[in-house]
Amino acid sequence: MPQGKVTEVPDDGLTTRERRALPLLVVHTGDGKGKSTAAFGMALRAWTAGWPIGVFQFTKSPKWKSGEEAALKSLGSVHESTGQGGAVTWHKMGEGWSWLRTQPEDHAKAAVAGWEQVKADLDAERYRLMILDEFTYPVSNGTLDVTEILATLAARPGTQHVVITGRRAHPDLIAAADLVTEMTKIRHPMDAGRKGQVGIEW
Amino acid sequence: MPQGKVTEVPDDGLTTRERRALPLLVVHTGDGKGKSTAAFGMALRAWTAGWPIGVFQFTKSPKWKSGEEAALKSLGSVHESTGQGGAVTWHKMGEGWSWLRTQPEDHAKAAVAGWEQVKADLDAERYRLMILDEFTYPVSNGTLDVTEILATLAARPGTQHVVITGRRAHPDLIAAADLVTEMTKIRHPMDAGRKGQVGIEW
Repeated sequence: MPQGKVTEVPDDGLTTRERRALPLLVVHTGDGKGKSTAAFGMALRAWTAGWPIGVFQFTKSPKWKSGEEAALKSLGSVHESTGQGGAVTWHKMGEGWSWLRTQPEDHAKAAVAGWEQVKADLDAERYRLMILDEFTYPVSNGTLDVTEILATLAARPGTQHVVITGRRAHPDLIAAADLVTEMTKIRHPMDAGRKGQVGIEW
Repeated sequence: MPQGKVTEVPDDGLTTRERRALPLLVVHTGDGKGKSTAAFGMALRAWTAGWPIGVFQFTKSPKWKSGEEAALKSLGSVHESTGQGGAVTWHKMGEGWSWLRTQPEDHAKAAVAGWEQVKADLDAERYRLMILDEFTYPVSNGTLDVTEILATLAARPGTQHVVITGRRAHPDLIAAADLVTEMTKIRHPMDAGRKGQVGIEW
């Protein structure tokens, strides 16, 4: 829910309407649960707004199938068949990305290939919401160049909202983002010796 | 993604399989964004698992329409027409709840009526995932009795996962929950004088 009031109106020459429609760079970080889950929750809003949605999962587990993926793809199918909502495109590093023919053995190369695709899609304004899931890792570990990433994001055309998730977000990324939420673990079932379960953890 | 390892196996007489299937009480609290959004993201997983989902929005704004509502209801329609995924039921206090004929003027009475319905549905095991959105407020302000709520939740039959969202969660609720995440605001566009926008905030 939109809560709170603007306390200071910036001297940027924009109207309130123009300012509120600015594209956002959003970061969900921290050690707690809910980073990716909240990003996919944002996709629900974007879908209802009729926006094309692009998900790029920089996952470490090739065989990972999430419940969010199946559900959001179903919403994409609803869009295709009825025109309701927005289109959903899903790319996954673990599957060698959709546009790579072979399963990449090298995670670093796969991350680079993923970022190249993100850049091309930003340039083409292909989506209105892009989710770069677990993208903090190749940035923080130096596989990708944070300076080039931030320059690319700063120069992105049109109104493309970008949501980046993952632990240990690079300080420069946090500094550049418009909205940063840290998910902090207060308690987790794992603490009580309980492993994850279908429907909850995936 | 399911990460981490169980560090301690409790002496509860349960197998790992039994323990991991225990129903969860989840709390998303804190001042940051993503509490409700992550809860609705969890609904995507539950939907894919084929679980009946009940959403109870203890909202303060009667006319509030969220993008999550339209999208999750669309998934409910997919379930009705194809059998895919789970059923989605949506109740909203702002609309006087679905089962009240008149618009309640009194928020406290509406919260009590909502909780009565939640209790009845828990008793009937109507859902596998229940989201009590912004439920922390009537608990923290004393409209509802936290002791009765926790007793009811502790005695709920079957495998009913309950997710409670909102700021300022009652300490007893936090103590009773299996999984608690605090969403902390690091930066928000409101800080830069930018108001919320469709597709992002609702």
